Amino acid sequence: MINKLTEKIKKTGAPIVVGLDPMLSYVPEQVKKEAFSKCGETLEGAAEAIWQFNKAIVDATYDLIPAVKPQIAMYEQFGVPGLVAYKKTVDYCHEKDLVVIADVKRGDIGSTSAAYADAHLGKVLVGEKQLAGFDADFATVNPYLGSDGIQPFLNVCKQEKKGIFILVKTSNPSSGEFQDRLIDGKPLYEHVAEKVAQWGEEVMGDSYSYVGAVVGATYPEMGKALRKVMPKSYILVPGYGAQGGKGVDLVPFFNEDGLGAIVNSSRGIIAAYKKEEYATYGAQNFADASRAAVEAMIQDISTALRK
Amino acid sequence: MINKLTEKIKKTGAPIVVGLDPMLSYVPEQVKKEAFSKCGETLEGAAEAIWQFNKAIVDATYDLIPAVKPQIAMYEQFGVPGLVAYKKTVDYCHEKDLVVIADVKRGDIGSTSAAYADAHLGKVLVGEKQLAGFDADFATVNPYLGSDGIQPFLNVCKQEKKGIFILVKTSNPSSGEFQDRLIDGKPLYEHVAEKVAQWGEEVMGDSYSYVGAVVGATYPEMGKALRKVMPKSYILVPGYGAQGGKGVDLVPFFNEDGLGAIVNSSRGIIAAYKKEEYATYGAQNFADASRAAVEAMIQDISTALRK
Repeated sequence: MINKLTEKIKKTGAPIVVGLDPMLSYVPEQVKKEAFSKCGETLEGAAEAIWQFNKAIVDATYDLIPAVKPQIAMYEQFGVPGLVAYKKTVDYCHEKDLVVIADVKRGDIGSTSAAYADAHLGKVLVGEKQLAGFDADFATVNPYLGSDGIQPFLNVCKQEKKGIFILVKTSNPSSGEFQDRLIDGKPLYEHVAEKVAQWGEEVMGDSYSYVGAVVGATYPEMGKALRKVMPKSYILVPGYGAQGGKGVDLVPFFNEDGLGAIVNSSRGIIAAYKKEEYATYGAQNFADASRAAVEAMIQDISTALRK
Repeated sequence: MINKLTEKIKKTGAPIVVGLDPMLSYVPEQVKKEAFSKCGETLEGAAEAIWQFNKAIVDATYDLIPAVKPQIAMYEQFGVPGLVAYKKTVDYCHEKDLVVIADVKRGDIGSTSAAYADAHLGKVLVGEKQLAGFDADFATVNPYLGSDGIQPFLNVCKQEKKGIFILVKTSNPSSGEFQDRLIDGKPLYEHVAEKVAQWGEEVMGDSYSYVGAVVGATYPEMGKALRKVMPKSYILVPGYGAQGGKGVDLVPFFNEDGLGAIVNSSRGIIAAYKKEEYATYGAQNFADASRAAVEAMIQDISTALRK
């Protein structure tokens, strides 16, 4: 799947991923109204609204992008119906031949991590049948529990030719509280990055590993250092746009081959119609505003990378 | 809810929690057979099997225990139908007046952590309605992202009078890989524990905080040190039984009032019928074997605490 991701990035010229993190407040009134008139002001109604919202955005952008990254928390908040919408979104994106990065940030001890890996990337055995739960292509994983929390994901990645992105340095303001603390003269996130490189050796694709890392766009200098620590790992870079990262900040996350990073934007794309610069689209044409925001993001990043 | 947990522990004399982590391999053949004949060898069939298994165990043990801890990964692996079984389990345990600790180990950046907190402990606003997604009483939380990943949980805890247990030192063999590394002469887990104590001050119940910690039974010496760092935090102690922890190892996790810790056992209780010592029950009476295992666990821990 890392090979497919790399190919799709080359083909689209767009090292970007659209974050499908549908807060209900991003969904235009007309979409909510229709969903609520169909299902009521219920969890099912909310789930229907975010699913219709997602579908319109995917329809308007899928030919420009290699991948999407649904943030499962935004679905989980609506309980079981929300997770039905999550699953529909994953499946629909697959129909559109998009790579799906499940932003689930799971991580636990051995047998439990194995269950999470099966849930999101693998299959479970039910009687005689092998069945998939959520069936994404990549998942994000939390490293706090160490190797035996990661190994079950590596096993499933090997078997299914899928991948993971391990949290190394997150984009949020307080990420430094633990991640930046020095251990033997090096910050914790660098120790984690060294492990990512090591874990990644086990599961190599053609030129990149199935094991990538998450490093926030908000920390470009750390990105530069970490790029060297994990040369064979794709870096998934959140924090572009709404969280403050810009195209020029992203250059250090890429390798010299122009690959090795994929930049996420969520709110900046899916709620583009609410931004002043795309206001002319209006709420009715929210998906077209998302398409325009994707085009601007590709332009911004490719210009920065060409310099 | 921390007050309710404390009261229920006093009333039952059982500082224990039954981990409802139903691997399909734990479920007796007759339960699986019935579920598969009803729903087929499908995710729905697996979900029905684990739900019937859980129900029987809860029915056989609820009067002895204060709380249960469903491990959501074991449900998530069966996709949406698995999460339907998870929700049914949470609701059923509430009917039996059990405190429900959702072992979800979630944690993300601000707005996403808020969605997780709403999903598992709080409510979401849908139109004019406040609706609950999964509605547990406590959730486990991963600290790797720092304060702004925790704060949204604190906000929901305050509002709903619910609680969290933050991973401090996990029970698995490789937990030391990052958690034990020294920062300014102290292991990372101790820095996290200090933050737990600090976060916990914001949300105090009568004698304990809404903010607890997870510290593995497999590390009793660390438990002793951490008990002092977080005197007002309940410690949720996994790793008893199957993972190797014994009653005598658990004493250091408790305060002098005999409170402040709650010990989890999962496999040792729910799959007790597979152990030699409970083999006479047979697979037909698996729930009675679980009851016997609960009684033995209470005995083991209370004997150790009386010494």
